[in-house]
Amino acid sequence: MKNLLTMNQLSNEEIHAILEDAEQYRLGKGWTPTNMVFVSNLFFEPSTRTRFSFEVAEKKLGLQVLNFTAEHSSVQKGETLYDTVKTLESIGANAVVIRHQEDHFFEDLIGKVSIPIINAGDGCGHHPTQSLLDLLTIKQEFGKFEGLTISIHGDIRHSRVARSNAEVLTRLGANVLFSGPSEWRDPLNTFGQYVGVNEAIAKSDVVMLLRIQHERHDEKSNAENYLQEYGLTKDREKQMKKGAIIMHPAPVNRDVEIVGDLIECDRSRIFKQMENGVFARMAVLKRALQQIEQNQEVNNNVIYS
Amino acid sequence: MKNLLTMNQLSNEEIHAILEDAEQYRLGKGWTPTNMVFVSNLFFEPSTRTRFSFEVAEKKLGLQVLNFTAEHSSVQKGETLYDTVKTLESIGANAVVIRHQEDHFFEDLIGKVSIPIINAGDGCGHHPTQSLLDLLTIKQEFGKFEGLTISIHGDIRHSRVARSNAEVLTRLGANVLFSGPSEWRDPLNTFGQYVGVNEAIAKSDVVMLLRIQHERHDEKSNAENYLQEYGLTKDREKQMKKGAIIMHPAPVNRDVEIVGDLIECDRSRIFKQMENGVFARMAVLKRALQQIEQNQEVNNNVIYS
Amino acid sequence: MKNLLTMNQLSNEEIHAILEDAEQYRLGKGWTPTNMVFVSNLFFEPSTRTRFSFEVAEKKLGLQVLNFTAEHSSVQKGETLYDTVKTLESIGANAVVIRHQEDHFFEDLIGKVSIPIINAGDGCGHHPTQSLLDLLTIKQEFGKFEGLTISIHGDIRHSRVARSNAEVLTRLGANVLFSGPSEWRDPLNTFGQYVGVNEAIAKSDVVMLLRIQHERHDEKSNAENYLQEYGLTKDREKQMKKGAIIMHPAPVNRDVEIVGDLIECDRSRIFKQMENGVFARMAVLKRALQQIEQNQEVNNNVIYS
Repeated sequence: MKNLLTMNQLSNEEIHAILEDAEQYRLGKGWTPTNMVFVSNLFFEPSTRTRFSFEVAEKKLGLQVLNFTAEHSSVQKGETLYDTVKTLESIGANAVVIRHQEDHFFEDLIGKVSIPIINAGDGCGHHPTQSLLDLLTIKQEFGKFEGLTISIHGDIRHSRVARSNAEVLTRLGANVLFSGPSEWRDPLNTFGQYVGVNEAIAKSDVVMLLRIQHERHDEKSNAENYLQEYGLTKDREKQMKKGAIIMHPAPVNRDVEIVGDLIECDRSRIFKQMENGVFARMAVLKRALQQIEQNQEVNNNVIYS
Repeated sequence: MKNLLTMNQLSNEEIHAILEDAEQYRLGKGWTPTNMVFVSNLFFEPSTRTRFSFEVAEKKLGLQVLNFTAEHSSVQKGETLYDTVKTLESIGANAVVIRHQEDHFFEDLIGKVSIPIINAGDGCGHHPTQSLLDLLTIKQEFGKFEGLTISIHGDIRHSRVARSNAEVLTRLGANVLFSGPSEWRDPLNTFGQYVGVNEAIAKSDVVMLLRIQHERHDEKSNAENYLQEYGLTKDREKQMKKGAIIMHPAPVNRDVEIVGDLIECDRSRIFKQMENGVFARMAVLKRALQQIEQNQEVNNNVIYS
Repeated sequence: MKNLLTMNQLSNEEIHAILEDAEQYRLGKGWTPTNMVFVSNLFFEPSTRTRFSFEVAEKKLGLQVLNFTAEHSSVQKGETLYDTVKTLESIGANAVVIRHQEDHFFEDLIGKVSIPIINAGDGCGHHPTQSLLDLLTIKQEFGKFEGLTISIHGDIRHSRVARSNAEVLTRLGANVLFSGPSEWRDPLNTFGQYVGVNEAIAKSDVVMLLRIQHERHDEKSNAENYLQEYGLTKDREKQMKKGAIIMHPAPVNRDVEIVGDLIECDRSRIFKQMENGVFARMAVLKRALQQIEQNQEVNNNVIYS
């Protein structure tokens, strides 16, 4: 059962294998299943990038896509996530991709459904395919993680991305720095060192900005102040190292985390990250489904006996 | 014109033919159209099972799916159901699958549109594909309907399923019992005999539970009381006959109609019903479209002359 | 870059070429891309005809369809149209079809995104594919535009269709008349002459009714009065010329713009227009994508170098 729930569950070897597969897909090669395979996308929160990135990945793999939206479903009649997933499994889904507002939504599912679950973002918790596409973008740029300095800027505490990226980048040999307002520090995230924004930017090979998630916390932030105090201004960009790049998971709050003009500057890999998201997700889907397909071959005559 | 609007319209022979086709699809065989065929799914009420079951059935048949949701459509501008269906027909839909909150919604359409209409549930009225998947599940289990005792439990009066199932099961030779609160008896449904819950359960080969449709009636029911008085408790399950099975159209209200632990017990066919829903709907779609395709061949050069 | 934003941008030759292609698609012939091509439909307003017409057109061309709805997207988090389109482009969309409530929404996009944009209706502005399907319907009927008299009836001022149709029909050699309440005259639309409803109907080869867009303006119109004063009644239909036809972009307000019984009369081409919409849009998509595909071949190895 090849779930993908958190980055923690992946060994360094598995991560490198996924990145290698993603690169193959980018080059137009790679696996596609021989049978008709159904994947259901369950998005309980709005999403453009992640949802369409999965849908494009699925279609490029030749999979059949079932797009589930909560408000048109029996979730309206009180059906639980478990019953919903079990239903989709019974109807023929071979895997489910889920974004859900609750941290660790998947704990109700693990070991109880027999199709792979791919976490497309849980509450303030994890977002492993975002981490994988970030890793892919960094590896394409530098060919390695060892010895790189990567600073993560902003709302460390409420970010799905900050925690898993800091852990995995450290594990892969990078040096992680954090920067941002002190009230957004995360006492549980011990994988990086807090430094001032100017120091972080001057030292980094990768300046990784986080989105200020207005929809997730109440503290009101003065947008213009944020840019000047913690964001990537034109002046700060000039202090970046030669060859250093800018990343952001998007959607970007223009002129808050980063000055608008820099979003598509030469250093920016923001739209490149989106491109890579498709390839990373293709690799994750392959990992989940390749085994399913082998099982199907073995069990084909047995299932309904 | 092979509409499927109610179970009444189907002869016993037609029912057996549909079940036989469904079984062929379950075994991986069966018909698929040679031309590009479009089916539009119009769901005016929330649904998980029925909607995705139709979508999977359509995709397994190689059909092109057009998912229509009322709130993104010109229904918002006051367009009627008739004009909506006529529009989809003009645009190229070869059949429509419709779930609608109004009883007999299809009466505005019959004889006025020239593509088949498949009723996916009308108000408190009919839900023929649910009946067909129930029949398929029973036939797979017992190989026949004659002589079986089947009890239907719960809200007989507001159930789309109770009426058509009682009628068709009686017609196919089964003995139908009803059980549930007296205020939910249905004076129009004369196809079964009302008995107490314990008697019904002890006598049945099939215990068919109905969903309490909180969304359809005002009477407040005390959930725990309902389970003890009318539902399937662990004690009652022990009184079931050897080989008897449990069915429920789902979504289940856990610990109301049935104690949660029994939903996936050995006797339960609840998720099996969902699996069978796909095959039953493939057979219904084949029935609707096979003729369309033959007409297309005849009329191909004439249509736009 | 083969955008389709307004009818103005198309020369007479280009219009005739699109109509010829549409006719080929109607006859079952025509181009389909060899590579996997993605098109994203972004509808920020409700639509049945235009949305499904594009989806059927895309599927008939063998394209992969990404259906975007604003309320499930990061538009909810404040993402701009530009960032949304740029995101879909990065994820792999090869073209976007957009309906948006703002006039000239596309001005934020032109020259900034590198995939073709097809305008599926902007505010009270343009709706070029509606114009093209109207032209296709007229040309099928009369074989030409020169010398035809075409009257446009109703809310000239707020109609996306009135302006572009009047301009293009005049340019193609037809004589355009306007008719309707004086408060709905459009001082910017100088391509036709205002006449009384009876005169307009008696002189026309094509009576083109416009929808009263209750959702777009505040003036309350008394529906029954409208029909008698400005609409197509049975009496007025009898005054139409031999061979003259009735058109309406739909959805029709029955018994407002036209008496209900005439909607499907012999003269009506209202549902024929919808059929033609699919073929016109196939031709527009071909025009947009044929070049993309050629570019893909050239750039295939270069894109990610």
